[in-house]
Amino acid sequence: MSTKRFSGVLAPVITPFHADLNPDYDRLLAHCRWLLNKGVGLAVFGTNSEANSLSLSEKKQLLDKLVEGGIDPMTVMPGTGSCALSECVDLTKHAVNLGCAGALMLPPFYYKGVSDDGLYAFYSEVIQRVANTDLKIYLYHIPPISQVPISLDLIDRLVNAYPENIAGIKDSSGDWENTLALNEAAWPDFRVFCGSESFLLQNMTHGGAGCISATANVNPAAIRNLYDNWNTEQAEQLQAQLDQVRALFQRFPMIPALKAATAHFANDKDWLRVRPPIIEMGSSQLQQLVKEMNSASFSMPGL
Amino acid sequence: MSTKRFSGVLAPVITPFHADLNPDYDRLLAHCRWLLNKGVGLAVFGTNSEANSLSLSEKKQLLDKLVEGGIDPMTVMPGTGSCALSECVDLTKHAVNLGCAGALMLPPFYYKGVSDDGLYAFYSEVIQRVANTDLKIYLYHIPPISQVPISLDLIDRLVNAYPENIAGIKDSSGDWENTLALNEAAWPDFRVFCGSESFLLQNMTHGGAGCISATANVNPAAIRNLYDNWNTEQAEQLQAQLDQVRALFQRFPMIPALKAATAHFANDKDWLRVRPPIIEMGSSQLQQLVKEMNSASFSMPGL
Repeated sequence: MSTKRFSGVLAPVITPFHADLNPDYDRLLAHCRWLLNKGVGLAVFGTNSEANSLSLSEKKQLLDKLVEGGIDPMTVMPGTGSCALSECVDLTKHAVNLGCAGALMLPPFYYKGVSDDGLYAFYSEVIQRVANTDLKIYLYHIPPISQVPISLDLIDRLVNAYPENIAGIKDSSGDWENTLALNEAAWPDFRVFCGSESFLLQNMTHGGAGCISATANVNPAAIRNLYDNWNTEQAEQLQAQLDQVRALFQRFPMIPALKAATAHFANDKDWLRVRPPIIEMGSSQLQQLVKEMNSASFSMPGL
Repeated sequence: MSTKRFSGVLAPVITPFHADLNPDYDRLLAHCRWLLNKGVGLAVFGTNSEANSLSLSEKKQLLDKLVEGGIDPMTVMPGTGSCALSECVDLTKHAVNLGCAGALMLPPFYYKGVSDDGLYAFYSEVIQRVANTDLKIYLYHIPPISQVPISLDLIDRLVNAYPENIAGIKDSSGDWENTLALNEAAWPDFRVFCGSESFLLQNMTHGGAGCISATANVNPAAIRNLYDNWNTEQAEQLQAQLDQVRALFQRFPMIPALKAATAHFANDKDWLRVRPPIIEMGSSQLQQLVKEMNSASFSMPGL
């Protein structure tokens, strides 16, 4: 990993599956290339990547194959968090050794109500075991799903103990006040990504680093355009346009809808597959999604 | 696995760690032998085993070593659930091939608010991929921690689709009405284990199969004694005695307290270690625990 920290827009890249539910490397590589071409980075193995539905060995193999396939690892910020310390260390080392730009790291999420001391010990052990200043950790705060929040106090302790390694955060709390507090904390060069482009303009205005958002899988160029032009007169209009697309997708279950949009515009039904416990949308929901995308003149050009 | 289904008392066996936090096989084997000697079975890789803090490969190795160490696999019901279908299938196959009595299976627990259809698809895929009538699944319902409940409707669908494989449930909801409903559902030979010995007498009275309880790690003989004598005049008194010990341990964080009691009676401080995000108790808490165990004349004979 470089010592440089990340800024910009990243997509938690959706993971295509073969009929036997094994990960489909070729389709993943193609989607990654399309996303890079639209100006967004690759937060593979995020929540919307169904990453926790993948095994450690599947994730390591996919990462190897992306790099072998010519993806610049400096565009990749894989999710490497795990409930198990040993697995988190293994995958994070793998990402560092491949030269990935950073690691997006969930807290261990099985036990609930764990203390900040316990979470500090977890991250601390990971950092000490990876033992590489090239490791850039972006903490992943997503309490609606993980149910294990990452508090400002915890971040403060981690930043002070490991200033080289704790590089930033993805805030998927959906709580703007929390994102604001993260920006105002003024830890040196700490990168704050909002977890939805709905907050992108606000986040940039307050010194944030960008966003890592599910809908960057389907609407990458427009989100990147706001990132590039947040400080211009068009910014509010661009934000309003992003909000409309986001709202469209939020009327459906997000992961199946992202895959369905990709399947539709790539004319490739293999993209519809998900791993349980996520399930595909039914045919009437699929038709409704296509209808709404058409009404909104939404498309995924070049797919 | 045998076609016979499990009944009795099992302990979610606590997992000892070396100073480097690797699992300590020798201490685990010794504790398993002590538990078997006290009449309880081995639900290794449960919540109180810190199982989700272990990697897949660590769990497979520990299971191999227990069987190599002479533990009868028919006394072992390992937790094999995982968020990842591929990992759950891998570990479950491993357990079946070793001849384990059953597999205690959490639902995938990362995504919240998933549908019964999604959970049905997950369990269904696991059963079809393991493809062995010797597989006996005990569903693991622990909504306070997993945050993903297993509904009566879901169980009904699974029992009807896979009557050979769905053998029972551990109900750690803490909700007696749910345990009662499971007993009253009258699925053929469906084994209902309560997740705490606090409900053991009630569960046995209503046709239950036993209990799988954290405190069986420290109080196995007494819990087994109630299981053997639930239909006698002493039963209520035995239940009251169990409740007192349970209450004692519940005044402390459970996993560190189970390990601290074991460390105390084995005179072996190595037992204190936990993996983050769980943390050890401080010295004043440790002293308090020992004081309360002494006041209650509680001991772990033969350890």
